Amino acid sequence: MTTCPPADIGMSLEEVDTPALLIDLDAFERNLERLAASLSYTNVRLRPHAKTHKCPVIALRQMALGAVGVCCQKVSEAEALVYGGVSNVLITNEIVGTQKLRRAASLVRLAEVAVCADDAENVAAIDKVALDFNVQIPVYVELNVGADRCGVESGQPVLALAREIDAAPGLRFAGLQAYHGSAQHVRGYEERRTAIASAVEKVSQSLDLLKRHGLPCHIVTGAGTGTYHFEAESGVYNELQAGSYIFMDADYAKNLDEDGKPVRTFDHSLFVYTTVMSRPCKDWAVVDAGHKSVSIDSGMPWVDGMEGVEYIRASDEHGKLEIHKTDCPIRIGDKIKLIPGHCDPTVNLFDWYVGVRSNRVETIWPITARGAVL
Amino acid sequence: MTTCPPADIGMSLEEVDTPALLIDLDAFERNLERLAASLSYTNVRLRPHAKTHKCPVIALRQMALGAVGVCCQKVSEAEALVYGGVSNVLITNEIVGTQKLRRAASLVRLAEVAVCADDAENVAAIDKVALDFNVQIPVYVELNVGADRCGVESGQPVLALAREIDAAPGLRFAGLQAYHGSAQHVRGYEERRTAIASAVEKVSQSLDLLKRHGLPCHIVTGAGTGTYHFEAESGVYNELQAGSYIFMDADYAKNLDEDGKPVRTFDHSLFVYTTVMSRPCKDWAVVDAGHKSVSIDSGMPWVDGMEGVEYIRASDEHGKLEIHKTDCPIRIGDKIKLIPGHCDPTVNLFDWYVGVRSNRVETIWPITARGAVL
Repeated sequence: MTTCPPADIGMSLEEVDTPALLIDLDAFERNLERLAASLSYTNVRLRPHAKTHKCPVIALRQMALGAVGVCCQKVSEAEALVYGGVSNVLITNEIVGTQKLRRAASLVRLAEVAVCADDAENVAAIDKVALDFNVQIPVYVELNVGADRCGVESGQPVLALAREIDAAPGLRFAGLQAYHGSAQHVRGYEERRTAIASAVEKVSQSLDLLKRHGLPCHIVTGAGTGTYHFEAESGVYNELQAGSYIFMDADYAKNLDEDGKPVRTFDHSLFVYTTVMSRPCKDWAVVDAGHKSVSIDSGMPWVDGMEGVEYIRASDEHGKLEIHKTDCPIRIGDKIKLIPGHCDPTVNLFDWYVGVRSNRVETIWPITARGAVL
Repeated sequence: MTTCPPADIGMSLEEVDTPALLIDLDAFERNLERLAASLSYTNVRLRPHAKTHKCPVIALRQMALGAVGVCCQKVSEAEALVYGGVSNVLITNEIVGTQKLRRAASLVRLAEVAVCADDAENVAAIDKVALDFNVQIPVYVELNVGADRCGVESGQPVLALAREIDAAPGLRFAGLQAYHGSAQHVRGYEERRTAIASAVEKVSQSLDLLKRHGLPCHIVTGAGTGTYHFEAESGVYNELQAGSYIFMDADYAKNLDEDGKPVRTFDHSLFVYTTVMSRPCKDWAVVDAGHKSVSIDSGMPWVDGMEGVEYIRASDEHGKLEIHKTDCPIRIGDKIKLIPGHCDPTVNLFDWYVGVRSNRVETIWPITARGAVL
């Protein structure tokens, strides 16, 4: 259910009720501009992943800086984006079942909406709904480039499925979806480079085969915040799907660069604002953000700007801070910023972003696709 | 944001779109009745924890079977419950900050609403708001009985804080909150028994001290699904806060009974219904429920009723099933039931329960307090 926002526009940060999902607008805008600028003199398009933010307001800001559109994972997310004014959405996922396919076909009348496929029977099902709705649905072949999740294997299986799509009267073969999910959080630079080199090899092999058989492939789309520079330089990828760069998870900040130092291309701009609700002894304090307010699937959140204070355990509605300094002045009522280990599922816990600049609430954006799992 | 329900009343189960949060109504009702019946000849009251279900419809069903009221963790949850017709709510948590205290005071005009405290300054702040709103707020002293989270230590600190509450003109000393959270998921029967025996000792010591100083304590409230029978038999607890018993997490089903066998007092009644969206090879399949649809903080979900199929990894919107049987017939489009490792945070991901009986959708209930973190 939609909750009421934890702040009013114009409030000072200190007045914001907690837990609240804060965006540091200066850092956020720097992140948007940095990635856009790094691609501006290339022929590589940016299609940021909206599964990170679930918010049409942010999608439109990304497109205003040059993104060709956005991606999402679910038909219901695509609805929230299109109904929020986003004109171009790629659902980077297989869509199974008549109800979802009808919803996707209905969206194709309003915006450029495409889907992925990795199975011939599914392609036939998409075609059937497209014909029923009298629309043409663009379909990407999803290629398994190493994540071992969805997707067909490179080479012959790609060609076979692309032919099915090409032959279907209600569909258009749109390109290759080639996202290497499991490479994104590999810590070492060389290991990430090698993983993407292997993905590039699989894509190249498939592109050659498609070309030889007269099926041109204009778009190869993929990449995430952890590896996008490798795909950008690959010569085969021409569309990038990075999403987390806008917020920067604590976990992504553990990736290492060429010199073995933490990658610092983007700044942390998303925070869970939380209040100290108990300080029973000198060794620990308890805050009001547990794992119903900050996702812990990729590790505990970091405590922003406080040395010697560590978020060590989350229960549903409590976070336990271990205090390593004997003279730590943390008191009940103090408000603290947490950097989420994983931003995407954290965003999915909230209905509102509270956008802050210079310690003042400047904007409150609805997270329209929160809970859009269908 | 509120999403549309994944089903219509009257549909067959097979028609329900996925991911959906299903309640097996027969199993759910058996669970409600079993716990109510086990307490019916005792003087121990039941106050189930609504943090599990976040739904006034369920709270009212629990009260119809004899529960005196429910608990919750957040003021915004209490609002959702009271506005949904629940007349008696204990917020088993410290409430910090004027905004939240005002919201709590406002609720006290509509229903019996109580809060907890573990700090004298916080007690003064609650009193100030109570006087400002011209209400009397019942306050429980939270006692640390072993979880080492919030709460004062037993004995003298309990007495000191109870005196502060008793002396505050806007407050009423209501009793002791004595929940041993970390004991709930301890596997061994003896270890759980010992943990609760230690909690009972701390409560008894505090009760004696309060009595000797003329501060009678009528309610000792606590306990969870993992240990409630120990508290029920303790002679000092007279109110139980079990919550998860209605749904039964996979994780709770790993607790062992006196004979070293898994505890089977309650049945699994909550499921995440999910569709197979990819079957790229014989070794694995991918379903459309990742950790944005089923919480993994207490382990992966179990696959219901399918031998040789294991949910081994969750990404945001995908679940990977490892298939150990060579002849497994799982196909794209098949719908599967998952038993969540942890029900409470799983419920918090959805806006709707789909209540099913005899494979037919009988009811759809709104999860009104979903996302209520304030």
